[in-house]
Amino acid sequence: MEQKEVTVCTNKIFEGKIINLRVDEVKLPNGKVTTREIVEHPGGVSIVAVTDKEKILLVKQYRKPAEESLLEIPAGKLEKGEDPLLCAKRELLEETGYEAGFIKHLITFYTTPGFSDEKMYLYFAKDLKKYTAQPDEDEFLEVYEYAPEELWEMILQNQIKDSKTIIGILYYFKMRNSL
Amino acid sequence: MEQKEVTVCTNKIFEGKIINLRVDEVKLPNGKVTTREIVEHPGGVSIVAVTDKEKILLVKQYRKPAEESLLEIPAGKLEKGEDPLLCAKRELLEETGYEAGFIKHLITFYTTPGFSDEKMYLYFAKDLKKYTAQPDEDEFLEVYEYAPEELWEMILQNQIKDSKTIIGILYYFKMRNSL
Repeated sequence: MEQKEVTVCTNKIFEGKIINLRVDEVKLPNGKVTTREIVEHPGGVSIVAVTDKEKILLVKQYRKPAEESLLEIPAGKLEKGEDPLLCAKRELLEETGYEAGFIKHLITFYTTPGFSDEKMYLYFAKDLKKYTAQPDEDEFLEVYEYAPEELWEMILQNQIKDSKTIIGILYYFKMRNSL
Repeated sequence: MEQKEVTVCTNKIFEGKIINLRVDEVKLPNGKVTTREIVEHPGGVSIVAVTDKEKILLVKQYRKPAEESLLEIPAGKLEKGEDPLLCAKRELLEETGYEAGFIKHLITFYTTPGFSDEKMYLYFAKDLKKYTAQPDEDEFLEVYEYAPEELWEMILQNQIKDSKTIIGILYYFKMRNSL
């Protein structure tokens, strides 16, 4: 069955620092017209970075939408036209102070395809060398290191509750012997 | 370090069918003021539903923000005040036609805590009994069944690219012997 929804018209609602919002009027496969609310996002990268002692790096950061500080793998949004690999190296260094001797792309996914076009590029990094973290002026981060088994417990205990971080940790468990 | 961002004022930008958008002016830990763009979402449920032959149910659905059809585990958004467990049972039946003899909550996570408050409640379901799918009037779904190993290959091949679906499948691999 052809599922495509054809755009009838687009209404731009908002242009922000991080996201834009538009509402598309679309024609459904049954010919009816409805609306789709779409958050435009430039996309982002996130990195499962593993130290020589097999600890995974997390950063703790206040997330206003959640109204709490969350533990997440290092991550950041793509600058306009930026290569995701370069962005991953940059964000890892800025947020944690580590430079990766080895870094590779794992998978790319939509975070919330029901209402946003945000794509997340997930990377794996190792052979880490420590420099100094250089967070953005308005970023307040704390860096932590955990053993994979601790992180699995923290997922089960709801101490880790960020989707890209859960994907990164679970992917690492599935692939750790071949990464 | 106290990371909390105190709300100075809130500007409501948009109220939609699925999401609202607001921009909060916040005071950072260093005293500076900046803005946070926040997409309000009622939250959702998603279900890893496993048949007696150990196949996992997926639904294929056109996602306008991605401009393509995506394979996802059954999912849906919470109605106002709805219990997530009842929502999970309802969405599983509506989208796939299966009723779950056994259903349990696994984990809850933020899909995109950088810009949205959406919480996703992930469930596991088995002992499935087949009725008839009852999609919403404007939902166009196709239901598929895959073996877990096929799904892992499909994640690696980028044929599955939805975050909650990847979490559900990876979680199943980690826990399949104890679910």
